[in-house]
Amino acid sequence: MKRTARMWVRAMATTVVVFGFGFGVTGLRPALLADEGMWLFNDLPTDHLQTKHGFTPTPAWAEHLMKASVRFNSGGSASFISSTGLVLTNHHVGADTLYKISTPEHNYYRDGFCAPTYADEIKAPDLELNQLMSIEDVTSRVKAAVTATMSPGEAAVARRAVMAEIEKESQDSTGFRSDVVTLYGGGRYHLYRYKKYTDVRLVWAPEADIAFFGGDADNFEYPRYDLDACIFRVYEDDRPAQIEHFLKWSERGLQDGELVFVSGNPGRTSRLATVAALKYQRDVRLPYLLNFIRRREILLQQFSQRSPENERRAHDDLFGVQNSRKVRTGMLQGLQDPQFMAAKEAAEQKLLDTIAQDPQLRGHAQAWETIARLQQRQAELIPQGISLNTTLFQVAQTLVRMAIEDQKPSAQRLREYRDSARESLLQQLFSPAPVYKDLEQVILGDLLAFLAEQRGGDDPLLQQILAGKSPRARAAELVQGTRLDDVQFRRDLAANGGTLLESCDDPLIQLAQLIDPESRRLREEQDAIEEEERQAYAQIAEAVFATQGTSTYPDATFTLRLAFGVVKGYEQDGQPIPPWTTLGGVFDYEQLHAATPPWKLPASWHRHRDRLDPETQFNFVCTADIIGGNSGSPVVNRELELVGVIFDGNIQSLPSDYRYDDRQDRAVSVSAQAIREALQKIYGADRIVAELDQ
Amino acid sequence: MKRTARMWVRAMATTVVVFGFGFGVTGLRPALLADEGMWLFNDLPTDHLQTKHGFTPTPAWAEHLMKASVRFNSGGSASFISSTGLVLTNHHVGADTLYKISTPEHNYYRDGFCAPTYADEIKAPDLELNQLMSIEDVTSRVKAAVTATMSPGEAAVARRAVMAEIEKESQDSTGFRSDVVTLYGGGRYHLYRYKKYTDVRLVWAPEADIAFFGGDADNFEYPRYDLDACIFRVYEDDRPAQIEHFLKWSERGLQDGELVFVSGNPGRTSRLATVAALKYQRDVRLPYLLNFIRRREILLQQFSQRSPENERRAHDDLFGVQNSRKVRTGMLQGLQDPQFMAAKEAAEQKLLDTIAQDPQLRGHAQAWETIARLQQRQAELIPQGISLNTTLFQVAQTLVRMAIEDQKPSAQRLREYRDSARESLLQQLFSPAPVYKDLEQVILGDLLAFLAEQRGGDDPLLQQILAGKSPRARAAELVQGTRLDDVQFRRDLAANGGTLLESCDDPLIQLAQLIDPESRRLREEQDAIEEEERQAYAQIAEAVFATQGTSTYPDATFTLRLAFGVVKGYEQDGQPIPPWTTLGGVFDYEQLHAATPPWKLPASWHRHRDRLDPETQFNFVCTADIIGGNSGSPVVNRELELVGVIFDGNIQSLPSDYRYDDRQDRAVSVSAQAIREALQKIYGADRIVAELDQ
Repeated sequence: MKRTARMWVRAMATTVVVFGFGFGVTGLRPALLADEGMWLFNDLPTDHLQTKHGFTPTPAWAEHLMKASVRFNSGGSASFISSTGLVLTNHHVGADTLYKISTPEHNYYRDGFCAPTYADEIKAPDLELNQLMSIEDVTSRVKAAVTATMSPGEAAVARRAVMAEIEKESQDSTGFRSDVVTLYGGGRYHLYRYKKYTDVRLVWAPEADIAFFGGDADNFEYPRYDLDACIFRVYEDDRPAQIEHFLKWSERGLQDGELVFVSGNPGRTSRLATVAALKYQRDVRLPYLLNFIRRREILLQQFSQRSPENERRAHDDLFGVQNSRKVRTGMLQGLQDPQFMAAKEAAEQKLLDTIAQDPQLRGHAQAWETIARLQQRQAELIPQGISLNTTLFQVAQTLVRMAIEDQKPSAQRLREYRDSARESLLQQLFSPAPVYKDLEQVILGDLLAFLAEQRGGDDPLLQQILAGKSPRARAAELVQGTRLDDVQFRRDLAANGGTLLESCDDPLIQLAQLIDPESRRLREEQDAIEEEERQAYAQIAEAVFATQGTSTYPDATFTLRLAFGVVKGYEQDGQPIPPWTTLGGVFDYEQLHAATPPWKLPASWHRHRDRLDPETQFNFVCTADIIGGNSGSPVVNRELELVGVIFDGNIQSLPSDYRYDDRQDRAVSVSAQAIREALQKIYGADRIVAELDQ
Repeated sequence: MKRTARMWVRAMATTVVVFGFGFGVTGLRPALLADEGMWLFNDLPTDHLQTKHGFTPTPAWAEHLMKASVRFNSGGSASFISSTGLVLTNHHVGADTLYKISTPEHNYYRDGFCAPTYADEIKAPDLELNQLMSIEDVTSRVKAAVTATMSPGEAAVARRAVMAEIEKESQDSTGFRSDVVTLYGGGRYHLYRYKKYTDVRLVWAPEADIAFFGGDADNFEYPRYDLDACIFRVYEDDRPAQIEHFLKWSERGLQDGELVFVSGNPGRTSRLATVAALKYQRDVRLPYLLNFIRRREILLQQFSQRSPENERRAHDDLFGVQNSRKVRTGMLQGLQDPQFMAAKEAAEQKLLDTIAQDPQLRGHAQAWETIARLQQRQAELIPQGISLNTTLFQVAQTLVRMAIEDQKPSAQRLREYRDSARESLLQQLFSPAPVYKDLEQVILGDLLAFLAEQRGGDDPLLQQILAGKSPRARAAELVQGTRLDDVQFRRDLAANGGTLLESCDDPLIQLAQLIDPESRRLREEQDAIEEEERQAYAQIAEAVFATQGTSTYPDATFTLRLAFGVVKGYEQDGQPIPPWTTLGGVFDYEQLHAATPPWKLPASWHRHRDRLDPETQFNFVCTADIIGGNSGSPVVNRELELVGVIFDGNIQSLPSDYRYDDRQDRAVSVSAQAIREALQKIYGADRIVAELDQ
């Protein structure tokens, strides 16, 4: 059901294996680099922070920041910024909602929005926001459920079951959303409890032309001039929620070299993936994904250029795809650098040499071989994959699978169908967000053609799927024939344990039924592979802990982490790049590009230009260790005052999935001052600003 | 050396295997469809024409049309339209030259051009135009050179040698460019003699906005409104060439249902490729090519959006790539239609059943197995391919290979280095056309990254090529370090049998030397595969001739062919599509799209709108059997008067590589009347029009 995440890495892509954990891994410099790390809130690097920056976070400091942080389940991070439920995130994180509430008549994504009163705030159709309330270590209980004699398939089932049990118990006893998170690639399991907000309304968004000034051309470039921000409000019982922990806004500008903190939900890193796993990414998986991404990009471009309304309908998907293409191209370039891979190989060899000396650890070397074998198997599985993930097909698949899964006890189901996740699942399934059948048809037609390429035109399942028609003709028949765009029809089919599905003649339901056995077979094999990987990475974790110490952070898992760093420019092609830009600078930058799109400011900015303080800091860079999913993360100073919002990494940082390197890599933020200045001087949002000052 | 061809199929792509030959192949209808066929000028379907259309071309009729037809070696077709050397082709065929003669100050591609006097006509840097003078059957001599005991590798060498001998003898005795052409996939060999024109000058081109009105969005769509035409002039001894055979312009409009003829150079068809060969195209080759094409399209888009000058530099390549992407997508969609493939399978099975009954032919069935085996081998070879075809790398490779090849007798060299082809080769090698190092670097960087993906990052040759650097860093070093953009440097390196190359420290020369052994190994295997294919298709040809008769045409080979058909609309989604559009209609069509690019007419058209006769036919469709390479072909009536110029096929015709189907497939032309009307009324080209009327 999940739609493409908006962030610059699709943090929640469900097929992604989260593995590895982080160290100073380039092998070029000492173990842990100055500001490296995406730290657990229950295991902050206090000594490290004190040593490097003379600062020690107190438990109260950490609790306040944790509870003021917000996760967008559509993909991204955010923060509470008032006691009255205001939530600040990126425009590109909110874009999913801006797109869903827009119509041919009102394009909130393009034109922006500012609610004059509470009553004007627009409800998002399917947003779920999470506030992390507590973290509990449940490693021993999860590990105890898996015994040495189990096959990987059995172990995966057993582990899934115990995790579902723990989550169910927690949810029943606390009422909180409860997720067991796999950390250190399988070395630790923590239970995260979240307060959920599902009544979320749009308060303010700027025009796309300033939120994404410079467009795809400037994406991941710096210096930048983007007001990539928007504001929502969470409601409870139809009233603005009362928020205890929220961030106050700093009243001063940032200093060069100032220490700042980032609290957000980085999606995925692979910092201690083995060399075999990295080579699989380099030679197989990333090239495969990029081919698919470019294909979708061209497809959406072709659809968009047919009319302005087509462009509007496809815009959000197109941005997501272009973003993803740039990120993964950068990641692949990092892996294709022979120096990077040589350093990884040397570091791995050194670790293997060390454990070979140790009778206790010697046996762990097998873990590397296991992972190499599993990469080989993954490479074989890739072309067999069945991906028909249009919105409507995903609705069909969810309905079909839910009916099957619900006949089992919760703990035995596929993970997304467990009881504790049901509310979130149904919110997506019954989302009233618009579905555009013309766009759905074009995408499904291409996915069917892609399936034909991957499995070969003679594949028997493919031939059943196509039913004697060409991919595009079949897609037309399926999409034009389905009623799944009608939410009430979905509700009817889901009612009574899905008994209506048996005899349902909806063509997409029938397609989902046709595909499900093969799809499940692949899913089960994938689950077994991931289980074996977890066990192998747990072994590697033990070896690393034993030889290099335990003071480190796990790889990113789209859960809340603390990063830190300093505001700092860098050097590029021999030129110094300044730590921040100013509001005044955006007008010069527009001139430099002759005010041609995507370097054309909205009329509002020219109209109110004279009111703005041109020296106000606009975008800035810092050395904090971030990745996709951090988009929208609050940036705070030592006093926990809001100083900015993360929205990007620079182009040099794109390979940071695999390594941290603060020589040129930078996190890019929009400054809190610029947001506030624009709210007051350009958007006349005095009502909102008044709430910030309360 | 050859740059990307501009046509809608890259007809001259040197790695393309030309195979198969044409019949009514859908299996759905009788053997030869009404207006099917791309006929040899020395074997015209006179009976067929008489039966269907009551017309018999005389030898004089055919000779006149043949000699009035022109081939652009950059890819495309054309015609002589005056005794004073004027040549009419498509704007998109001339675009390669328009691009090469443009500068940041004068963008002839975008802005158009009209030479007021002879002296203002602009010389093309490297065009070669061919006028076909005669055709001679040399089948027996070519076939005699290959004996049954030769291995495919030996046979390929022997066949190459005898073809080079024949060409050399012909060139020496006649002075004409002489090419032995392989027809019917190896069933026949004909010697084509051409008069060559290498002093070619631009006379007139319209603005790109009207030549390609509707841009990529409307490419291959119909109804259309494109003035896709431009005019060159050939010179001899610095004076306009005197042309005996040229086409006079029709003075009347076209009638619905009127018989027309198309004389041009279709690039490639695969109408009787075996089912195994088609499945290889469907499941392997076309998906592979499309991934590469989309990758290049995105790359060029990214390069272009950085500045208007970047856009200008990449524009021509980008058009070629987008065009190619649309064509191949359409081809693949045709092959992915289960009904199409089932019909092909049935037709093939029927033929196999027939020959199984015949003791003389029974053994020929092995040919189908041979071809199936060769497809398998091609699929294995694809990822090993080394393609670094930037302009500068191709210069380097040509220099390196020429030095090696020239140590052998002409007949033993790789085919493109034979003596008879030398003049054309050197014209390309020493072309003064501009080379943009920034664009070269971006493309080479991506090709190196692609090579890394294809061969895997651990490939030893790849590692030698990268020399420890990332693909992009290595490309920067190579392109910034080379001097091959200096034509005099190329000449120096080519002088004295390339002895300077031995010690040359130019990094691209060194790279070409490094790659050459592996590159040759692959080339030799490819040549052997193609030889085996030729022998197998020759067997299949015999079987078909024996069972179905000989009155047919060979698959396209980028040599001159005659097609014919009637001016005729068609039905699409239940709507009738008219046979032609009018000049007046383009203004309505512009309004329909709110005059937003690419639907924005040039200022000249609005300025002179009132002068135009709005009823003038603009674009029209006919049922003639064309394919990429036919772009620019003259369309004539029975009286050999010019009525139009082919510039496109409609979207339904894209799978016509594999089949002819006149229900919806149409060739799209710009009418001669519209060109003349625009020349007079909009471009004030009275000088040119006066020449047409002489």
